[in-house]
Amino acid sequence: MPDSSSLPTYRVGVLGASGYSGRELCALVTGHPQLSLAFATAHTQRGTTLRVRASGAVHDIPLIGPEEADLAGVDLVFAALPHGASAEWVGKVIAAGARVVDLSSDLRPGHGGTTHALPDGVPADAPYGLPELFRAPLHGARVVANPGCYATSVLVALAPLAKAGLIAPGATVNIAAASGISGAGASPKLEYLFAEVTENYRAYGVGNAHRHLFEMRDTLSHLGADCDLLFTPHLLPVDRGILSTITVPLTRPLADPLEPFRTAFANEPFVELTTGLPALADVQHRNVVRIGAVSPTGMRQPTLLVFSAIDNLVKGAAGQAVQNANLMLGLPETAGLQR
Amino acid sequence: MPDSSSLPTYRVGVLGASGYSGRELCALVTGHPQLSLAFATAHTQRGTTLRVRASGAVHDIPLIGPEEADLAGVDLVFAALPHGASAEWVGKVIAAGARVVDLSSDLRPGHGGTTHALPDGVPADAPYGLPELFRAPLHGARVVANPGCYATSVLVALAPLAKAGLIAPGATVNIAAASGISGAGASPKLEYLFAEVTENYRAYGVGNAHRHLFEMRDTLSHLGADCDLLFTPHLLPVDRGILSTITVPLTRPLADPLEPFRTAFANEPFVELTTGLPALADVQHRNVVRIGAVSPTGMRQPTLLVFSAIDNLVKGAAGQAVQNANLMLGLPETAGLQR
Amino acid sequence: MPDSSSLPTYRVGVLGASGYSGRELCALVTGHPQLSLAFATAHTQRGTTLRVRASGAVHDIPLIGPEEADLAGVDLVFAALPHGASAEWVGKVIAAGARVVDLSSDLRPGHGGTTHALPDGVPADAPYGLPELFRAPLHGARVVANPGCYATSVLVALAPLAKAGLIAPGATVNIAAASGISGAGASPKLEYLFAEVTENYRAYGVGNAHRHLFEMRDTLSHLGADCDLLFTPHLLPVDRGILSTITVPLTRPLADPLEPFRTAFANEPFVELTTGLPALADVQHRNVVRIGAVSPTGMRQPTLLVFSAIDNLVKGAAGQAVQNANLMLGLPETAGLQR
Amino acid sequence: MPDSSSLPTYRVGVLGASGYSGRELCALVTGHPQLSLAFATAHTQRGTTLRVRASGAVHDIPLIGPEEADLAGVDLVFAALPHGASAEWVGKVIAAGARVVDLSSDLRPGHGGTTHALPDGVPADAPYGLPELFRAPLHGARVVANPGCYATSVLVALAPLAKAGLIAPGATVNIAAASGISGAGASPKLEYLFAEVTENYRAYGVGNAHRHLFEMRDTLSHLGADCDLLFTPHLLPVDRGILSTITVPLTRPLADPLEPFRTAFANEPFVELTTGLPALADVQHRNVVRIGAVSPTGMRQPTLLVFSAIDNLVKGAAGQAVQNANLMLGLPETAGLQR
Repeated sequence: MPDSSSLPTYRVGVLGASGYSGRELCALVTGHPQLSLAFATAHTQRGTTLRVRASGAVHDIPLIGPEEADLAGVDLVFAALPHGASAEWVGKVIAAGARVVDLSSDLRPGHGGTTHALPDGVPADAPYGLPELFRAPLHGARVVANPGCYATSVLVALAPLAKAGLIAPGATVNIAAASGISGAGASPKLEYLFAEVTENYRAYGVGNAHRHLFEMRDTLSHLGADCDLLFTPHLLPVDRGILSTITVPLTRPLADPLEPFRTAFANEPFVELTTGLPALADVQHRNVVRIGAVSPTGMRQPTLLVFSAIDNLVKGAAGQAVQNANLMLGLPETAGLQR
Repeated sequence: MPDSSSLPTYRVGVLGASGYSGRELCALVTGHPQLSLAFATAHTQRGTTLRVRASGAVHDIPLIGPEEADLAGVDLVFAALPHGASAEWVGKVIAAGARVVDLSSDLRPGHGGTTHALPDGVPADAPYGLPELFRAPLHGARVVANPGCYATSVLVALAPLAKAGLIAPGATVNIAAASGISGAGASPKLEYLFAEVTENYRAYGVGNAHRHLFEMRDTLSHLGADCDLLFTPHLLPVDRGILSTITVPLTRPLADPLEPFRTAFANEPFVELTTGLPALADVQHRNVVRIGAVSPTGMRQPTLLVFSAIDNLVKGAAGQAVQNANLMLGLPETAGLQR
Repeated sequence: MPDSSSLPTYRVGVLGASGYSGRELCALVTGHPQLSLAFATAHTQRGTTLRVRASGAVHDIPLIGPEEADLAGVDLVFAALPHGASAEWVGKVIAAGARVVDLSSDLRPGHGGTTHALPDGVPADAPYGLPELFRAPLHGARVVANPGCYATSVLVALAPLAKAGLIAPGATVNIAAASGISGAGASPKLEYLFAEVTENYRAYGVGNAHRHLFEMRDTLSHLGADCDLLFTPHLLPVDRGILSTITVPLTRPLADPLEPFRTAFANEPFVELTTGLPALADVQHRNVVRIGAVSPTGMRQPTLLVFSAIDNLVKGAAGQAVQNANLMLGLPETAGLQR
Repeated sequence: MPDSSSLPTYRVGVLGASGYSGRELCALVTGHPQLSLAFATAHTQRGTTLRVRASGAVHDIPLIGPEEADLAGVDLVFAALPHGASAEWVGKVIAAGARVVDLSSDLRPGHGGTTHALPDGVPADAPYGLPELFRAPLHGARVVANPGCYATSVLVALAPLAKAGLIAPGATVNIAAASGISGAGASPKLEYLFAEVTENYRAYGVGNAHRHLFEMRDTLSHLGADCDLLFTPHLLPVDRGILSTITVPLTRPLADPLEPFRTAFANEPFVELTTGLPALADVQHRNVVRIGAVSPTGMRQPTLLVFSAIDNLVKGAAGQAVQNANLMLGLPETAGLQR
């Protein structure tokens, strides 16, 4: 183990630190051996402090207003702002000369289904920060669009099948996904109060109405799959985690259901394959996608069931953002992510 | 409101009262205006009492050993015994001259996938107690096979589509279902301890391996549907409730996604249709199936998304068993079920 | 059972129906055989409907603005408004000629620790609606102050000891209470989001800072106890229920720890004594106080440990309000409360 | 940061690895820079593997039967066996020449209230492994009795007051504590099933009947306090964490309620003081005691309210055991505990 005190370190800032992704970013940066947190902003909670846990200790981080942030004084900014509001700040960061990882849907493929024009200087084709699928353009990149949480769990599971031509053309890939409630963010709404969520479970955003569907479709199409997606998210009485249960009509039966994943992810530090079934408890607080696969019996159509679990705040947001930042800054890809 | 003191009442017993379905049966019978609880049995907990809540009060019911039960002294027995062990007791009840509702899979269509011979005197073709689909043979019946919880939620949702010829022939109907943990029963196993379940979520019995699949397949085939089922159950950190998210490839698009259900269930007291999405909180502690339906956008194949929610212990087990008993004994079908 | 269709019924209204107590009131009134719901108001949610469950069915109740409520057209109003805002509306109801049960702290003994003047016409000495302790003045009353949830659980447990002179003079009665989160109301705040509450537990309002302390102190003093109270509430990751764990220094040892409660509550329909320990699951959704008591070993000071459990929304709020309304209107005290 | 590959490492074993404390020990040892896990035993689960998470990865640890463990081949053994069964194994470890940390109550002060004779060779006066109170005898010790979880949370909170002579002589110190359910262990019992625990809360072991009371009493007496303890534990619907709410009658009022703790714990790495109130979420998965204190108003008797939060499996069991092992083996006290 090298002496970390001699390693180069980079100054980073977090825009939108009071949300759940922003909090997680502050914790990860605080515990990262080569990043230091220069500022953390919050709009309504400015002037208060944010408590995060890192390296076995509790840290109280001061929150400043976003317009007080010294964008020119940092090497990289994580923008964890609401969809629609983020692109403007990405433009400011670019203008100030810093790199930026944008956690909103504004720069992603499909742009979250919106057609708003991007501000001047903000690229419409920022690399999509899913290193396991598209690593090359991330090395040294100045702007990266961090994927959505559902999209991460689904695309890592489907990409090996798409690339191998295993998805039956014209068929429907069915995705029934369930997410912990931190995915809904930290804005106080009646429907997310404890008393509304405990002992409850329901679908939402059904009928292909969820924002993440756009980046899934664009990315799968880019990978050569010609299929329809039917994406149905559900809300779990759980803090963190997403499990996507994916049904894939195949072009041919698979003798070993995990084989495409073994081939595709042989050396990936953040993909785990299991011959069992992934559970949320396996992935919470870790930067991994955990995948299981089963060939169901009694089907006329060759079909693969794929289960993909992530922590929506880590591999689904802040952890992946740090992974991208590592690649952008030339650091080891796993730095600060193996706590 | 008639004076209930002048109504005929029937004596009933519960075999297997210490399980979650058995407990719920004891509560429902205690609160039922025309049933009285003659005995409740439990194997290992005999000699203790069971606390149930009914009619605003707490009742402590003595548990006796099953061999102490006076089967000949009651009008009807609810058998809430483990799969495999139930058929033998059904035979004893029949021999003693009482009616019986069997909550196990032993007498159901498909027999839970097992091929065990039934004991002498136990009919292989007992009516399947899903009144909303097959009410006629239940009136006055002496033996009824009470459906599985998942099967109830799925079949009530699919039957109107199957009868109307709306399910695309040869297609796969995909069922992603999630159940509260009481569905796993009250036997103490490590995997159902609070610390293992809270903040967790996972699939189980995947690849078409779940017992309830057999009665779903048999029943749908009987209703004229020629489709494959892919059934994937999941375990929720919730006490009660099942939500089935069902994807149905259609023979033609539906202008009004709820129309088939309105037609089929116009006068059903225990089916609720919603133009929104059913949640577990809508159905807990109630004997209803609550159904919503949506036509997803962006699909080449006409497709219907159906959501079906029940309380697994009420409409999925004990409530439906009382509904069946009401029909068998000539009582109003809703008696004791509108608390 | 009398034919309920021939019973007299009274029209009632609910002010503040969108809060958790207000919702519960709407459900209880809807299921009550002799009350009918004339209106339900909500400030910000006016124009929407409120879903409640009563008598085995789901009801959607329209919410109107408070200024649209026909106060003169009803026999009784339940005011479930925020502390401080309620007294004004109580005055309007009185002026309109209807009876009123006020669920806020504005009219209670100690007035929640505030010294605001009450509006003209609002009595400063409204009867305190804890029927088990002070039933006589509630019969036919026109204005009643409904007790706080914590105060109900504590005072029902302490009153028999105070009246019997069993509380050691000058001593400290220690109350460690824990409440489900619905006690905090339905206003969306970050600290009550599911992700903040699940798997967490903490004290709040400590050091004798909680509003309910005032009515406890005033009432105990009125009952002849000369003791200090130390009241420490905690927040549970639970929807409903309060358990108060109360340590009482005694003037003399008690041979039978339940004896004072048996004497005091011999004929109370809504007090349950247990030789075991009351749990939240015993009382949820029921209008009862459930009490257990234990004499601890190894103590120089004779001491009684009392455990008191209620549902904070039922016996701690809406159920007790209906119990009070029954007494005010001359109905059976238990009407509508034994579901 | 020194290069950990050149640090001395010690081989350790875990007896009773399938319980929750044993699992946590295996995780901590796996992630410890100077300990290596030589064996992990389990009685009924022998032959299976145990999944633990450490250093950002998932590890599957083989479980062997206890009689297969090579006690002579390790430097130190953690005995995480049931109370009563542990002392015999401690004797075997001592005979084999290894050091041992015993997590049962068998060797603790008060011996858990039992009077069983200890096996030959097992010392009746093993040092009590609460380093913040009694560090000196732990350096280089060969046998250490690891404290109970409740005792840790209570004694760290009371010791500074006892040592400073602040606890009023002859008074009652009231402790209302609440624990997550992992404190009850991983043995499958009906009462710990998810469906029994969720949305519930209750006291247990009341009236001074809990095993941990003995070590609290003995230790406080040893520290010079002459008080009675009244200890009432409660069961939370939470996986991990203990919050003890402690009421202490004082000899004199305290101007600054935290002052005794600041003095006593100035340089303790594992004690945190807060001017707010400690919550379970502050301490979960961390080896700390977090303490807050408040002087309540309106009391004739000078009184201090102390709140003490720990993770019952870390500072309350496995983390403290590793802390003790570090002291026994001459390692840095914090090694492996600041993840």
